[in-house]
Amino acid sequence: MREWFYEEQTPSTRIAVEIRKILHEEQSQFQNIKIIDTIQFGRMLALDDVIQVTELDEFAYHEMLSHVPLHAHANPESVLVVGGGDGGMVREVSKHDSVKRVVLAEIDEAVVNASINHVPSFSVALKDNPKLEIRIGDAIEYVKNLHEEFDVIIVDSSDPVGFAEGLFSREFYGNVHKALRPGGMVTIQGESPWYKYRPMIKRICGWFGEIFPISKQYWANVPSYPSGVMLFPVGSKGNDPAIPIREPVCGLRYYSKEIHKASFVLPLHLQVEQMEEF
Amino acid sequence: MREWFYEEQTPSTRIAVEIRKILHEEQSQFQNIKIIDTIQFGRMLALDDVIQVTELDEFAYHEMLSHVPLHAHANPESVLVVGGGDGGMVREVSKHDSVKRVVLAEIDEAVVNASINHVPSFSVALKDNPKLEIRIGDAIEYVKNLHEEFDVIIVDSSDPVGFAEGLFSREFYGNVHKALRPGGMVTIQGESPWYKYRPMIKRICGWFGEIFPISKQYWANVPSYPSGVMLFPVGSKGNDPAIPIREPVCGLRYYSKEIHKASFVLPLHLQVEQMEEF
Repeated sequence: MREWFYEEQTPSTRIAVEIRKILHEEQSQFQNIKIIDTIQFGRMLALDDVIQVTELDEFAYHEMLSHVPLHAHANPESVLVVGGGDGGMVREVSKHDSVKRVVLAEIDEAVVNASINHVPSFSVALKDNPKLEIRIGDAIEYVKNLHEEFDVIIVDSSDPVGFAEGLFSREFYGNVHKALRPGGMVTIQGESPWYKYRPMIKRICGWFGEIFPISKQYWANVPSYPSGVMLFPVGSKGNDPAIPIREPVCGLRYYSKEIHKASFVLPLHLQVEQMEEF
Repeated sequence: MREWFYEEQTPSTRIAVEIRKILHEEQSQFQNIKIIDTIQFGRMLALDDVIQVTELDEFAYHEMLSHVPLHAHANPESVLVVGGGDGGMVREVSKHDSVKRVVLAEIDEAVVNASINHVPSFSVALKDNPKLEIRIGDAIEYVKNLHEEFDVIIVDSSDPVGFAEGLFSREFYGNVHKALRPGGMVTIQGESPWYKYRPMIKRICGWFGEIFPISKQYWANVPSYPSGVMLFPVGSKGNDPAIPIREPVCGLRYYSKEIHKASFVLPLHLQVEQMEEF
């Protein structure tokens, strides 16, 4: 008897992924957490039945959301990861020698524990990591009180529903700007540019343009996400985020100097200025 | 009662697309043909229950498979489309003033008729097109007997199963080389580089490297295809296919000079030389 995990990618499109074994399931204070061993994608974290990261393709997402700002920034020492309780983003950020401090601001400790207990490839850098400080709590409140504290802020959040909605607001990005040191950069997971979040993406990019001296967008191919691509808005107080200024760190599978630059070239219909709704 | 169309994208992954109405269904001499009006993707052509083209995203596929060779070639006058009975590829090719002759070599006349009857946006250039010659029959046999006949050959085929399998063979590509004029170029739909066709892609790119003076790969984002991206191997007897040499034709939604060049930059793990199987 075959068992399937279903995600509603759009109101009228679903993906079904065959389950080998459900490794973990709980209802935390915030959400439903599942860690499932799947045949196609390996181990997979789903929150409220939305795929967050899978062993097959998480490297594409984590590398591109982190290494673009980290290779474009003059000297990233202090990095904040908002969300990202699975640990994959911390793993990538920690590869940079210049980075001395990584703060993980995750609202749901249960995600961190589930990842540590069931997916070592995601969570490897969450244990015995002298650079890391884990702060369990509301990142919106935390960021509100920061002043020029971080060189790079990476918003590795779930979709803009429920408690994560405030991470997609103009007020939050204003506070992010304040929390960044001179020369600082922020990247956020910006959802699929094809479907229901197009109006939101257009709005967010408008805010980035008002708040940051430089505002751009780039993309990456992540098969387990709706449409297979995700858009990443980036804001900078300093360098041009489209230009890598140092050699890539070792051990990467998606990111290169060349893909860094090429990822800022979007097809016409995904360029924010041209985005018609469809 | 909601009705769904299912495609098995990999042996353990399915996509489900909600049906508004089935507009056409028949079993032709070669395959099962469905034209379905869907909520998310608009009208959609499926052959043997594999999505071929949808109104939402067919422009991405058709533009990138055709306009890359057509903008890189010195003077494309004569173009062969293998497969492509829906008409989308002929529509794009016909936009080039330099092109005087387009031959559509489609094995299954029923696909052409279904597209003409049910999806005008795909088939618009199949009627009243003075450049077009439709040849119903086996393209493998047709190409075998050609000698320096075409400037550009575009293989717009279905998956390498059944009658289409011969389109993915070394012998066929050898005949394509012979059928191309000096300076000629060929592009083929090269499937998703993430899943089951990886070994085949690696093999094909090896053959292209042996057969053509220049052999490269590029990609495009097409949400309705497995993994959301498709790889396109390209072979050239003349110009570098990665370099557009004239201004884009009008009315494009995906293709630009910049995305032409950027699409040849692949993430490390999708570069054919580096492709490990996974």
